[in-house]
Amino acid sequence: MISKNRIRFIKSLEQKKIRQDEQLFVIEGEKMVNEALEWIPNKIKAIYYTSDFKFNKPTLNTEIQQLTPDELKSISSLKTPNKALAICEFLSNKTEISTYNLVLDGIQDPGNLGTILRMADWFGISHVICSKDTVDCYNPKVLQATMGSIFRVSISYESLEDFFAQNIKPVYGALLDGKNLFLENFEKEGIIILGNEGNGIRESVKKHIDFPITIPKYGSAESLNVATAGAIILGSVFRGI
Amino acid sequence: MISKNRIRFIKSLEQKKIRQDEQLFVIEGEKMVNEALEWIPNKIKAIYYTSDFKFNKPTLNTEIQQLTPDELKSISSLKTPNKALAICEFLSNKTEISTYNLVLDGIQDPGNLGTILRMADWFGISHVICSKDTVDCYNPKVLQATMGSIFRVSISYESLEDFFAQNIKPVYGALLDGKNLFLENFEKEGIIILGNEGNGIRESVKKHIDFPITIPKYGSAESLNVATAGAIILGSVFRGI
Repeated sequence: MISKNRIRFIKSLEQKKIRQDEQLFVIEGEKMVNEALEWIPNKIKAIYYTSDFKFNKPTLNTEIQQLTPDELKSISSLKTPNKALAICEFLSNKTEISTYNLVLDGIQDPGNLGTILRMADWFGISHVICSKDTVDCYNPKVLQATMGSIFRVSISYESLEDFFAQNIKPVYGALLDGKNLFLENFEKEGIIILGNEGNGIRESVKKHIDFPITIPKYGSAESLNVATAGAIILGSVFRGI
Repeated sequence: MISKNRIRFIKSLEQKKIRQDEQLFVIEGEKMVNEALEWIPNKIKAIYYTSDFKFNKPTLNTEIQQLTPDELKSISSLKTPNKALAICEFLSNKTEISTYNLVLDGIQDPGNLGTILRMADWFGISHVICSKDTVDCYNPKVLQATMGSIFRVSISYESLEDFFAQNIKPVYGALLDGKNLFLENFEKEGIIILGNEGNGIRESVKKHIDFPITIPKYGSAESLNVATAGAIILGSVFRGI
């Protein structure tokens, strides 16, 4: 039996402001909860699960509670809740070292951010820097799209002005009039900037680009989805270094 | 003034079955409707618009009707309708020649299909072949994600068995144990297969792959989003040919 107060509290974490006040976020689904048990066991405060959920690890200091499917539904943000939901503490956002890092300048779509974080994880990019107006990484749709990569990639929200003032790595960014991406020789370390879906990289950020690059176009589309563009760029970077 | 019958008919086109019976689909938004006027003027049956919509081309044999914002909302599938909605006839699905083509094996997510079609358009891939169980390309979320590329890329739904029985181009597909993508020398022409989000390329389709490829992994993500994986592969193809 789960209390009304508890239900109300968990549902309130769908709001960014409440998440930030509490420094807590919610993950859902068998895969996500088991990935959390694997990668961030000490950050899990509580797990709510139905009888068909299979724990892939023992829990340590985590509160666990079995619920009926209807009870799980009452705390879920999904149309079709999937066996488990967990409340987690905010993850580390400290700078992790990797050869390449991503800077995201105003990404708005949760699916795009999640997909980009998953790709960063694939390529071993351990830290992603987001402008303060980038969509919140603890948004449920972002978390779902990361497929667990949220637990392995460190994410910070900061003033990009301050970030670039400190940065010493070469900076690459996709612009309309850059050098052909496929002819670029990437340095061993660097920063890749990906810009907002509609407006691209903003002027105040553009000026930090050392190497403007352009993805060659063979057809008629005006532009590419930002995660797609990022994938083509990262593919070119990692094949070269 | 728009009639109740008309409203009911337009809303019914949100269902795949009705779209197929009527061979009609609905597009929404200023950009999409103007792209349709640019690329498929003869396929547009009717345009409904509010006073702030700007036609970028004159209409020819198209029925047009100005609506109030509330009326537009009554026929829209969007939370925030955007100036115009048009009813269009199904587009050509005949095979168009390009050096590379994509085969999609059971893509389920509308956003993924739309993003892939937009990318196909960028790379000049003029025809995309979908398995019969791939999500419908006239689904509103697919159309939105194509950003107009739906009007420039021909799409057919067919038995992949039949397609591969006829195909003479070399076939590439991403598998877990393929050759490193970054070391592959792509032929001048070819087929790239992208598989289902959860299950990848199904066994009956795998056997048609001449060149299995694998995207090298440098980090920990189990897999990549299918549109992201497709982007990395197409980037490698087009840099080489």
